[in-house]
Amino acid sequence: MPYVAPLKDMLFVLNELADLQVVASLPGCEEATPETVEAVLEENARFCSEVVAPLNRQGDQHPSTWKDGTVTTTPGFREAFKAYSDAGWQGVQHPTEFGGQGLPKLVATPCMEMLNAANLSFALCPLLTDGAIEALMTAGSDEQKQLFLPKFIEGRWTGTMNLTEPQAGSDLAMVRTKAVPQGDGTYRISGTKIFITYGEHDMSENIVHLVLARTPNAPEGVKGISLFLVPKYLVHADGSLGDRNDVVCVSIEHKLGIKASPTAVLQFGDQGGAIGTLIGEENRGLETMFIMMNAARFAVGIQGIGLAERAYQKAVSYAKERVQSRDLDGSANAVTIIHQPDVRRMLMSMKSQIEAARALAYVAASHFDIAHHHADENVRQRHQAIYEYMVPVIKGWSTELAIDVASTGLQIHGGMGFIEETGAAQYYRDARILTIYEGTTAIQANDLVGRKTVRDGGQLAHALMADIRQTYHALVAQATPDSQAIADRLEEAAAALEAVVNYVVQTMQSDIKAVFAGSVPYLKLAGIVLGGWQLARAACIAHERLQSGQGQREFLEAKVVTARFFAEHYLSQASALRSAIVEGGRSVMALEEAQF
Amino acid sequence: MPYVAPLKDMLFVLNELADLQVVASLPGCEEATPETVEAVLEENARFCSEVVAPLNRQGDQHPSTWKDGTVTTTPGFREAFKAYSDAGWQGVQHPTEFGGQGLPKLVATPCMEMLNAANLSFALCPLLTDGAIEALMTAGSDEQKQLFLPKFIEGRWTGTMNLTEPQAGSDLAMVRTKAVPQGDGTYRISGTKIFITYGEHDMSENIVHLVLARTPNAPEGVKGISLFLVPKYLVHADGSLGDRNDVVCVSIEHKLGIKASPTAVLQFGDQGGAIGTLIGEENRGLETMFIMMNAARFAVGIQGIGLAERAYQKAVSYAKERVQSRDLDGSANAVTIIHQPDVRRMLMSMKSQIEAARALAYVAASHFDIAHHHADENVRQRHQAIYEYMVPVIKGWSTELAIDVASTGLQIHGGMGFIEETGAAQYYRDARILTIYEGTTAIQANDLVGRKTVRDGGQLAHALMADIRQTYHALVAQATPDSQAIADRLEEAAAALEAVVNYVVQTMQSDIKAVFAGSVPYLKLAGIVLGGWQLARAACIAHERLQSGQGQREFLEAKVVTARFFAEHYLSQASALRSAIVEGGRSVMALEEAQF
Repeated sequence: MPYVAPLKDMLFVLNELADLQVVASLPGCEEATPETVEAVLEENARFCSEVVAPLNRQGDQHPSTWKDGTVTTTPGFREAFKAYSDAGWQGVQHPTEFGGQGLPKLVATPCMEMLNAANLSFALCPLLTDGAIEALMTAGSDEQKQLFLPKFIEGRWTGTMNLTEPQAGSDLAMVRTKAVPQGDGTYRISGTKIFITYGEHDMSENIVHLVLARTPNAPEGVKGISLFLVPKYLVHADGSLGDRNDVVCVSIEHKLGIKASPTAVLQFGDQGGAIGTLIGEENRGLETMFIMMNAARFAVGIQGIGLAERAYQKAVSYAKERVQSRDLDGSANAVTIIHQPDVRRMLMSMKSQIEAARALAYVAASHFDIAHHHADENVRQRHQAIYEYMVPVIKGWSTELAIDVASTGLQIHGGMGFIEETGAAQYYRDARILTIYEGTTAIQANDLVGRKTVRDGGQLAHALMADIRQTYHALVAQATPDSQAIADRLEEAAAALEAVVNYVVQTMQSDIKAVFAGSVPYLKLAGIVLGGWQLARAACIAHERLQSGQGQREFLEAKVVTARFFAEHYLSQASALRSAIVEGGRSVMALEEAQF
Repeated sequence: MPYVAPLKDMLFVLNELADLQVVASLPGCEEATPETVEAVLEENARFCSEVVAPLNRQGDQHPSTWKDGTVTTTPGFREAFKAYSDAGWQGVQHPTEFGGQGLPKLVATPCMEMLNAANLSFALCPLLTDGAIEALMTAGSDEQKQLFLPKFIEGRWTGTMNLTEPQAGSDLAMVRTKAVPQGDGTYRISGTKIFITYGEHDMSENIVHLVLARTPNAPEGVKGISLFLVPKYLVHADGSLGDRNDVVCVSIEHKLGIKASPTAVLQFGDQGGAIGTLIGEENRGLETMFIMMNAARFAVGIQGIGLAERAYQKAVSYAKERVQSRDLDGSANAVTIIHQPDVRRMLMSMKSQIEAARALAYVAASHFDIAHHHADENVRQRHQAIYEYMVPVIKGWSTELAIDVASTGLQIHGGMGFIEETGAAQYYRDARILTIYEGTTAIQANDLVGRKTVRDGGQLAHALMADIRQTYHALVAQATPDSQAIADRLEEAAAALEAVVNYVVQTMQSDIKAVFAGSVPYLKLAGIVLGGWQLARAACIAHERLQSGQGQREFLEAKVVTARFFAEHYLSQASALRSAIVEGGRSVMALEEAQF
């Protein structure tokens, strides 16, 4: 199944919703002129479609394999990764001083979407390297930066995140891997890490593990965790490779999906300890890891959008080809199934959710760029706060909807969808990891409730609500049936979200369990409202463009319809979520363990 | 993962909600005394848990294989099927005159649930044979009945349904398989049938295909389709086997799930035509097939419930074992994840949906039995109408929720859920066929809208609403906080369903596409309301029992909580569904094909 990048929608979102012009005017972002951005996206689209997308089925049919500690990736992956690096794609959003292109996150985000749409398994390797780069940029020593960043950006070395251990999944307080200082600035690391994506592979010259571990006498819990840099091959001061380090891939997992992406069990220190260096300060590893994780969480949200887009394209193509049953309008002959109302409903549900999630994610990337590049500290802080509120929503909601979209895509194929050769089933399997890794949806929801809502007393959320009401008024002023229908649903939904935010803030002290019983529904509600808001903004702008005769009529009209569909079928769920959260928290916790 | 049959809940539903006593008093159902029923269920539970359930993983890891036209099933399946037949389980609900046990459908239904929970792939073979038995009982000649029914019931022969062809899936009007009369009462059948479950296997001595085909000069469309009986081995008048018939299994599918169940492509007539006999009259094959299909649709709904129960049990067991993170109440040590509110929410969503769907399905089976055995024609008709309204809801809703439940079960396992060895992923894969075969959810929804709602002007649906309001009043009269909360949600939801039924009936003429654009949401709404109603009835009765000190307190209290949870988290969705259906139909159809 070919992949055609949805460049039209991407550019619309960048330009009309995510303020690309504003971002491009920020200090350090001047490269992002409209022409450059369009050229970069087109070239990335070509690369992803032609080089990476054809390997997606291949990866499912010929997963990475393990033998005697080495991993052989899917045929074609090595070459594709070399082409990816050679073309400079690893460096899109990274600083020019280390060899990157220095483009804003807003431009890197559609590139990320395209790569993931083309091939989720493949995209994970650069995604993890991005995280390692971000961690070193934030907390690495100058030496670490000089030694590692150019190699990462060149694609000669790749990065990994080593958090999970058999007893420590969602709860990092339970990490037991040890790091013993050697007095020479290095540490000896020993322990077992599991679920390490691209923890071992044959696509790069070196693999650099970022490892959470405890030094001797470190405090208990998350305050005693440090972050270490542990390369597979030791690195000399001149950047050349030395001996093999004491880290071994003892197996890879047999997974439901993303089979081409090797998920490693890594054993550190069986021969006396793997040699590592500290990143940042001792006992503050989790802070750095959180920077890396936030970047990765955003990226996993983008994975959801990319995968959903790919599943959607496949379903559309099948629906336009498959002839079955007559049209309900009474025509005599069988027609393609895209004429059937329920197939339409399914396609609209996919299309509208994807466009909502895409718009929200790109808008968040824009906030990130402003937060990092704006001259005014106050502006930076406000945008950073918005970005941080949005990250768990983008990760949690976009991945939950990706599973839904992939499942709907399979359904549109009918019986053929269940046959592996068709390919729709792969998306259904691949999608299923997205709500789990980089923090399950519940972990995202905890973040949304705790750090993002309760900590500031709901202030940021309320500020967003005020922005949403501006869109409401703009729609009402347009006074078309579409804009009024969208406006009404948006207002209702925003009121529901507002009520939930108030409930969460007010109830946290008195009944914490009832609040967290509604945390995932709150995240879902926030996704629907924020995503629906972006579509509402899009409809508003599309209407203006149509009025003034600018832009592509077909595309703009579709945007209005899509926003209205989303309002009627998704924003309309907001009140039910509100009542489930506000009234339904107690019944969640009411049973005894034995009653399950 | 062991399977423990939920006998407590099954018996509660049979006795308290589905009127087992009433059914047992019907002519022909006298065998179904409370003692017999309990003994049958216990014995079935033992058999399913001990013999069939252990083969479930086995079937996933060692699917059926095809070689040179023969299919070898998963190791152990042959023996298990023999044990199943020898114990008489194939005959539970079939007439004693052909060797069955003659028990009502109400008793066969929990048996079916247990078999499917134990092993969905395995259960499909008896399920299809049940369908063939039902078709012959309805339309077979005396000779066909005498020759085939005892063999089916003994489990020496099995049945299949041959509907689908490459160009004819949901639309049977497009069936092209030919049947040419030979003048001796037989026909020669030729054509290709696909997706034939257990179309070839090694578990029985003969396989009897029920095949839709067209005679020469038959009318176009569905009115020219006849049903034929085509055995793999020809059958002599004395029941002994003769020559191999001209039907060959040319391949089996490589599927996402239910891998042990062979899905065959059957080629009829490459050597001059497979010999078959007509079932019923020429050109009326679809009517008989619909009987078989209705039985099979109900059974697939039960598959959903069984699979969901199994996935739930696995998730509960993991949630009670896996230690991770501290309790939110502030205790110092990490606790099992069942203490986490979001895990609770997920478990409650699984438990409440399963119990709602189970209650609805068993109640429907009770209506079926009354419709088939009651002395009074008017009573029979009323119950038949209720059963027929419920069948598409049970098929469509129970299978959609099974996918949701299986996915939630996987989520509870975190990263381990994505690893195939854990087993949770198998349920996620297996469940995915349920909303497709025996008519997709959209096909069920078409049936609900067309034949079950519009045809009688919504009369039956309104009658159900009146029954629901009786439950509402009974709950209000109990005047507890739980009963009031449930009652309010039930009333709201029933009103939403009522509004939708009116909309469907009134809009069918003026805007048929808008109606069908909301058909699946209508089916979902009907499922939520009818299932929630059964839980509301259950809560009402549980409260009475608790008041009078009868029954098991723990179980009854859990039932009330579960009903309340369902009311707050699912019945609460009814209004949103109503508005999506009533107001959102036009936006579904508003785009041009080129805009997708």
